[in-house]
Amino acid sequence: MRQRHKPWADEFLKENTHLIIPNPAERKGKWRNYFGNDKPIHVEIGTGKGQFIAGMAGQHPDVNFIGIELAKSIIVMAGSKVKETARDNVLLLHEDAADLREFFAENEVSVIYLNFSDPWPKNRHEKRRLTFHTFLEQYQYILQPEGEIVLKTDNQGLFEYSLVSFSRFGLELNKVNLDLHNAGDPENVMTEYEEKFSAKGQTIYRCSAQFS
Amino acid sequence: MRQRHKPWADEFLKENTHLIIPNPAERKGKWRNYFGNDKPIHVEIGTGKGQFIAGMAGQHPDVNFIGIELAKSIIVMAGSKVKETARDNVLLLHEDAADLREFFAENEVSVIYLNFSDPWPKNRHEKRRLTFHTFLEQYQYILQPEGEIVLKTDNQGLFEYSLVSFSRFGLELNKVNLDLHNAGDPENVMTEYEEKFSAKGQTIYRCSAQFS
Repeated sequence: MRQRHKPWADEFLKENTHLIIPNPAERKGKWRNYFGNDKPIHVEIGTGKGQFIAGMAGQHPDVNFIGIELAKSIIVMAGSKVKETARDNVLLLHEDAADLREFFAENEVSVIYLNFSDPWPKNRHEKRRLTFHTFLEQYQYILQPEGEIVLKTDNQGLFEYSLVSFSRFGLELNKVNLDLHNAGDPENVMTEYEEKFSAKGQTIYRCSAQFS
Repeated sequence: MRQRHKPWADEFLKENTHLIIPNPAERKGKWRNYFGNDKPIHVEIGTGKGQFIAGMAGQHPDVNFIGIELAKSIIVMAGSKVKETARDNVLLLHEDAADLREFFAENEVSVIYLNFSDPWPKNRHEKRRLTFHTFLEQYQYILQPEGEIVLKTDNQGLFEYSLVSFSRFGLELNKVNLDLHNAGDPENVMTEYEEKFSAKGQTIYRCSAQFS
């Protein structure tokens, strides 16, 4: 989806470099120092407008969150949202998450969230799916040995594909939920997309997996 | 569900020992001889009234099928159904599938079907679920190295549990389908139960997994 041009976006980015970090590759391996504490680091890939990461940061003050979002007009919305909450445990990266090893050192991350990622349904686009094995290799590198990937989607095809892809890669499933909203996880923090589509009756799938 | 007493059941069993095999433990390791050919052996646990196994036997004449069902009044119905089709590639066992190693030798089986198994939803009954690790150990023993388990159910909880249980045991998922009937697998052979509940709009889940 093409986003409307937001003239204030460049200005917002310029004025909020403490929140939306420029040149994050320079911080690689040093995020704990930057946060100024030893809390575990959770990374969300495709942060969108920030409802999930802002909500999670409030629910888990014992965790540091880093959200990555490529679209400029979107990440500034996430930035505003995080600013409103005045949390000090969220940072944002305005980057393409093509290779997370650019931004994170080995074992630096505890959890990776893949929320409503683009399903790339065509077979020839398989390698763009964020659960394709080349991405799993990156996650394995930046995650701690006991680290987790948490995948949430309403896309049946992507979820089916991801379960198989995790399994082939040797990841161990910790938990699978095939109807998250009916099962009732009171801790679940919804993304904007999730809120909208589950209200329309769309089934939401979630699983967590680890490199065992 | 308690089954109605069928007075003809004992008689049917007595007259059809070539189809519903008494003392199957004596045939262990020798099923190929009994079928009189080298076709792969597929085993269905909980054959019910036999619609699945009879349908599969027709669809796959290159495979020998063995169905196991504990309930006497039910297996005789499966027996009648198989008799009608006059297939020579189906046998039935009137047995408790508590330990398949009683009936099958190491590597004797190519595929195991678990169709609409009892979900045993209470935590304290976990060990009765046919995808509990003690059952997976049996399947691993009787299956060939490339052999598959194919699980089909309408029970969300059992399916979620089984995906995790497979994964923990080191099984590799080959295929996952979270809405079998909408995805449209024209090869799918329905069980009686599946036909009834999918007609009511119940989602049918299926996956296949192998010990890699």
